Amino acid sequence: MRILIIGAAGMLGRRLTEQLLANGRLCGSQIASILAVDVVRPAFSSDAGPTLETATADITDANALRTLVARKPDVIFHLAAVVSGEAETAFDKGYAVNLDGTRHLLEAVRQVGEGYRPRLVFTSSIAVFGAPFPEKIDDTFQCAPLTSYGTQKAIGELLLADYTRKGFVDGVGIRLPTIVVRPGKPNKAASGFFSSIIREPLVGQEAILPVADTVRAWVASPTAAVGFLLHAANMDTGLLGDRRSLTMPGLSITVAEMIEALRRVAGPQVAGRITHQPDPEIAAIVAGWPRDFLATRAEAAGFRADADFDTIICDHIADEEARKAAS
Amino acid sequence: MRILIIGAAGMLGRRLTEQLLANGRLCGSQIASILAVDVVRPAFSSDAGPTLETATADITDANALRTLVARKPDVIFHLAAVVSGEAETAFDKGYAVNLDGTRHLLEAVRQVGEGYRPRLVFTSSIAVFGAPFPEKIDDTFQCAPLTSYGTQKAIGELLLADYTRKGFVDGVGIRLPTIVVRPGKPNKAASGFFSSIIREPLVGQEAILPVADTVRAWVASPTAAVGFLLHAANMDTGLLGDRRSLTMPGLSITVAEMIEALRRVAGPQVAGRITHQPDPEIAAIVAGWPRDFLATRAEAAGFRADADFDTIICDHIADEEARKAAS
Repeated sequence: MRILIIGAAGMLGRRLTEQLLANGRLCGSQIASILAVDVVRPAFSSDAGPTLETATADITDANALRTLVARKPDVIFHLAAVVSGEAETAFDKGYAVNLDGTRHLLEAVRQVGEGYRPRLVFTSSIAVFGAPFPEKIDDTFQCAPLTSYGTQKAIGELLLADYTRKGFVDGVGIRLPTIVVRPGKPNKAASGFFSSIIREPLVGQEAILPVADTVRAWVASPTAAVGFLLHAANMDTGLLGDRRSLTMPGLSITVAEMIEALRRVAGPQVAGRITHQPDPEIAAIVAGWPRDFLATRAEAAGFRADADFDTIICDHIADEEARKAAS
Repeated sequence: MRILIIGAAGMLGRRLTEQLLANGRLCGSQIASILAVDVVRPAFSSDAGPTLETATADITDANALRTLVARKPDVIFHLAAVVSGEAETAFDKGYAVNLDGTRHLLEAVRQVGEGYRPRLVFTSSIAVFGAPFPEKIDDTFQCAPLTSYGTQKAIGELLLADYTRKGFVDGVGIRLPTIVVRPGKPNKAASGFFSSIIREPLVGQEAILPVADTVRAWVASPTAAVGFLLHAANMDTGLLGDRRSLTMPGLSITVAEMIEALRRVAGPQVAGRITHQPDPEIAAIVAGWPRDFLATRAEAAGFRADADFDTIICDHIADEEARKAAS
């Protein structure tokens, strides 16, 4: 079992790599090698062992992908992306990475030929959906994105389905909910504040809420997201037919409910460190995002959401304590 | 009013060009020039007048599109495509023309800058939909194509919407029904037999029906299709919001009903010239195609379907007689 992880320096890529190293197995087989790549070399603890190799690669370069894929990994996780906020301002870069990069990967796999048909797990996003939408979005609702990022992810899903249908890859696209609580520093995603309003108050810092607390979101924890990635690699894709992308299960929750959970878990003083400071640009992007789903197909295929938001916060606190203890 | 027609040598491109020449006006303005381009130079009658210019251009060449768009046409009709049957067998060519070609066009428009924002009418197709689908497909149903052609058209729609949202073009995508009766010789479209079974018997030739006569299709005449193109150029796109592609109205009709209409219009002898000769490959492609719609948005926006199939056949007969008289 050889694994390639593209985008391994990102928050989910790192966690996925560490989880795979800890598990030692995937799809019922022992992991022989993990090649973890990103535009910057992914850093892991020095005792990761001989199965892990790290490398740099720019997915806007078709040749770089041909080199990576020439090793014929059995499973490829494609997590590399320019995030929503950046793709909206850096139009060319967003298309180059999110569209051309994904296409280069699919083409690199196809060009190997000789019956090579790896499992390809593609991280899509609920940003493929755009307003107006029904109260709950079901599995047959159209992808009508309202951001360039969402557009690029929707195109990636279409390419993944077509390359799968033609027998070049065995693709699974997973539409990730908004990931909360992201550890570390904010990234350029317009959804960053959903994490900031939990993460910063917990370490004694003030946090800015750029939207009204009535805003509702579809969220999943980093732990749940890594679970989705692993399940997408392990699952029987025969269940999917020709529709290879699935909306992942999540929690539908308002900002006010998130803050209430923070108050329950960490007390009113912590929850009091959030200041409402409206940002019309972020509010406009978020207003077009979907907020509630019937993730029927994904649940039937065995993908599981977090239990509740209190648990998400407690898991984040435990993760941070473990990280501090390790460093 | 300057007009650019890409794909002007095709059946619809020719008719559109001729109709524009006959009308002399578009969007309430006099037509100053029509540039009609295709991979082969489009041929029109010598008395077309000084407004018409023809040229060759390969849309897989980004430079060729930059040259065409540098003239800043007010309205661009983009009809150029590798058809469904060919895109399925010539994988690279399909993506090069149908995806890259469309993207090159959008990029060429964007690169002009200086507030240039032409109306861009993009011919999409109901092949963006794939089985399974409901009895009638409404305007919110997902694009889940089952052919590379449908995939490429769905991607074109996504790009058109994003470039429109960003203010680079004023796009309208029209999802054409299966066009029946196509004049002339069969092309490589898998849907070609829908026209052959009417066209060939009417001129005394045998026709092959490669699918069961219970197969249902969503059809429109060439005349209706040209009407859609002109209306898409003329319409108030403010009605569309961010969802820039519309399923065009059509007739939902079975092959048996088409043959019955042929019998009514031309007699049993003509209708008897059709032989059922199953072709599993064509049957498989057609089985994945949608067959009935609620084209609510398009109808509300003023797009109009044909009256009935008998009229479609009569129009075809009249067209052919006019063509013979002219030649």
